Amino acid sequence: MMKSDRSDLRAFFEPASVAVVGSLRDGMGLGFRSIKNMLNFGYTGRVYPVNPSYDEVLGFEVYSDVSEIPEAADQVIIITPPPTVPAIVEQAAERGVKAAVIVSENFGEVGGEGAQLQRQLVEIRDRTGIRIVGPNTIGLLNTANGYITVPYFIAYDSLRKGTVTYCSQSGFVGPTAQPLQDRGYPINKMCDVGNKCDVNETDLLNCFADDPSTKVVAMHLEDVKDGRFFLEAARNLVSRKPLLVMKAGRTEEGARAASSHTSSLAGNEEVYDCAIRQAGAIRVNSWPELMEIPKVFAYQPLPEGNRLAIITHTGGAGVVATDIAVEAGLAVARYSDETVAFLKDTQFRLGGNPVDMGPILSTSDNPFQVQEEVIARIIDDPNVDCAIVAAYGGLEGLLTLVVEMFSRLKPRISKPFVVWLYGMKLGAMQEMVVELEAIGLPAYIDIEVAIKALGAAARYTSIRAGM
Amino acid sequence: MMKSDRSDLRAFFEPASVAVVGSLRDGMGLGFRSIKNMLNFGYTGRVYPVNPSYDEVLGFEVYSDVSEIPEAADQVIIITPPPTVPAIVEQAAERGVKAAVIVSENFGEVGGEGAQLQRQLVEIRDRTGIRIVGPNTIGLLNTANGYITVPYFIAYDSLRKGTVTYCSQSGFVGPTAQPLQDRGYPINKMCDVGNKCDVNETDLLNCFADDPSTKVVAMHLEDVKDGRFFLEAARNLVSRKPLLVMKAGRTEEGARAASSHTSSLAGNEEVYDCAIRQAGAIRVNSWPELMEIPKVFAYQPLPEGNRLAIITHTGGAGVVATDIAVEAGLAVARYSDETVAFLKDTQFRLGGNPVDMGPILSTSDNPFQVQEEVIARIIDDPNVDCAIVAAYGGLEGLLTLVVEMFSRLKPRISKPFVVWLYGMKLGAMQEMVVELEAIGLPAYIDIEVAIKALGAAARYTSIRAGM
Repeated sequence: MMKSDRSDLRAFFEPASVAVVGSLRDGMGLGFRSIKNMLNFGYTGRVYPVNPSYDEVLGFEVYSDVSEIPEAADQVIIITPPPTVPAIVEQAAERGVKAAVIVSENFGEVGGEGAQLQRQLVEIRDRTGIRIVGPNTIGLLNTANGYITVPYFIAYDSLRKGTVTYCSQSGFVGPTAQPLQDRGYPINKMCDVGNKCDVNETDLLNCFADDPSTKVVAMHLEDVKDGRFFLEAARNLVSRKPLLVMKAGRTEEGARAASSHTSSLAGNEEVYDCAIRQAGAIRVNSWPELMEIPKVFAYQPLPEGNRLAIITHTGGAGVVATDIAVEAGLAVARYSDETVAFLKDTQFRLGGNPVDMGPILSTSDNPFQVQEEVIARIIDDPNVDCAIVAAYGGLEGLLTLVVEMFSRLKPRISKPFVVWLYGMKLGAMQEMVVELEAIGLPAYIDIEVAIKALGAAARYTSIRAGM
Repeated sequence: MMKSDRSDLRAFFEPASVAVVGSLRDGMGLGFRSIKNMLNFGYTGRVYPVNPSYDEVLGFEVYSDVSEIPEAADQVIIITPPPTVPAIVEQAAERGVKAAVIVSENFGEVGGEGAQLQRQLVEIRDRTGIRIVGPNTIGLLNTANGYITVPYFIAYDSLRKGTVTYCSQSGFVGPTAQPLQDRGYPINKMCDVGNKCDVNETDLLNCFADDPSTKVVAMHLEDVKDGRFFLEAARNLVSRKPLLVMKAGRTEEGARAASSHTSSLAGNEEVYDCAIRQAGAIRVNSWPELMEIPKVFAYQPLPEGNRLAIITHTGGAGVVATDIAVEAGLAVARYSDETVAFLKDTQFRLGGNPVDMGPILSTSDNPFQVQEEVIARIIDDPNVDCAIVAAYGGLEGLLTLVVEMFSRLKPRISKPFVVWLYGMKLGAMQEMVVELEAIGLPAYIDIEVAIKALGAAARYTSIRAGM
């Protein structure tokens, strides 16, 4: 197949109709759950449950066989025992279905009979042209249309719509293992590629490079099916939008674990690291980095350079922030004489970077007005490219005041900055993250991830400049 | 002064009586707040507010001057403008007060007149023998007696009592900047040394080495006043209990920031790194590591070696856990033939390490019984020294079942293990952390910190063996 064919994944993310083959047992049957989730998240396409034992489920007529569904559905979701799967895919292809998401496990990753079944799937794909995500996957979701294939209980029924697309090789990056709603991530699409018998990371990169609703791609990988195609696709995507890559299995032992997870041939760490760098992708090294760094790209413009202003309320955090910044490739901005004069005029200890606003705020009658002015003036400094700004998020009563201050600040500032929240009450801090992001400001509770996000943004600026 | 004198800090942590000099304005006056916090946290010692403008506050008689308090109080807390501080310390010393916590800022850290005032404090200490914590500090707290000097509003009024003692050079490690109650940290004492004009990190190490209620010390440092004494005190402490050190200002720029924060001479990073290692202390590199790694020492015995069992519900997390473990100095345990046979008997895919219990749990009628047996058997393996065990914490309904399972497991297992929680609802996850720690099991939401905690424990075992 041509690249242009392979990257057309609309039948996966924007199906007008879907058949669901699996248990329809009320409540927890996996087919039932998948359909329930679609309805909960607002999918309004046509749904065809398939199961010989039911007539009707969740208001939909049930068909006893995929061959009997009343149209050539765009997609089929298959959650049945492995030996039954190839025949279902075959039938679906015959019925004109374009795409299959195979949730079922115990294929290539277990070897033996499972691997044999997976080879059958590939053969059917080659012969019929039906595209396959999986097997061994929770599938995908798209916040634009509420479409979701996940067949497990999800403790929430909405996600913030946004521009971040996550691709992963594990269901761990998905709604059943991540508190996506509480965190308020601005999600565009998610896709767990599972065993990648057909659709793989390269296809997703080509798809999302062309996807106007995706502004940044965050990808968790255990292996790459074809290095050359991957590199080409990644470079193409990076020329248009940032790509973050978390490569798991970076140690020898980790690579061995990956092999038993998704039968990945994780390969040589140095080769991967070099390829990721050559592609212009930005490597991240933890789940929080993968999930949260994209927010800075979703909400902020790119910085023009790497000169960071650090604005805190506490000297101790300023020192730690400085260490993290330098290690993340950022430079501690030296403010212009005008800014230094303004700062010293505001309070005699201010003038350096980091700026510790603590002392002045504790004695000011208008702390929010002072903060607003100091923040705006500093970020406006021609020697500053980006900023981290601390906010005290620990008290419910402060929420409105802080959010109002940042609402006033946002239109005054054209450079990227992130808000770092700290405080005494976790719930109030998390609520403030969500509220600040509702007004378009990326907010973080972990100072390290906050600064690494700006480091990634500055890095992308320099990568783009070198392309 | 002799070491034995300098390390006797009982008047700071266990004062039978305290004078508080500062604003008594109702609600937010810093003296008022300090007293209110003591009452909230349950301190029952004698309290003497000092302020010429009040007669009575919070039920206590107010004295117009420190010289007038009715006894030689153990401690005085001073929160007044810097120029007034030396005279108050002098008066307190004359009245027989043994210890002063000076919260006021703008001393050594601002140079000039502030530095001159700080020199006066040192001179008074030398002349009178009164001991000083600060200036430029939030002071200290002790959960055993509810004593707390912090003069700012705290959004909670109790802390979990435990065996972790935190020392820091910043108020950031303290109740006004950390959600200590929500996190449920098992705290023994906290002390912010501020500018360290007298009591410094070495004194605290000597004090806490001898403190039977402190099982582990977590120390945030920007500099060390005297390297030789520090090294000696640290080695002495490490021979009795573990010491974690977060050295901020590890980059050149960070060291410069530290200098303007607490007038620290942060010095050469390599020298510090080497000294920390020589002392047998374990270096940590982030606030979450400093705050959360101690939990493993507080709740668990030391591992005999570094062989880790990884027990998850998801293959993807197992791979990531393996990478982190190897990088944290842990070895991926190879199970004995008996364990492998048991695992394979339980389900055909089990047998390796990491163990992915996901597939078997999703098909089992008694998932908690299966988990319990698998976890107990694995950790009991003679080739296993410690373990990380995943738990699904994302649903309120699961809380009781998970906590009950671990309650049954705990007495069956004599080796250290940590629980790593993941899930769909942040609040439920955090609640599960607190509940599991209530039954004495360290629980983590960040898998990296969870595994690094076990790495630190194994490291301490090997440090102790080499001493």
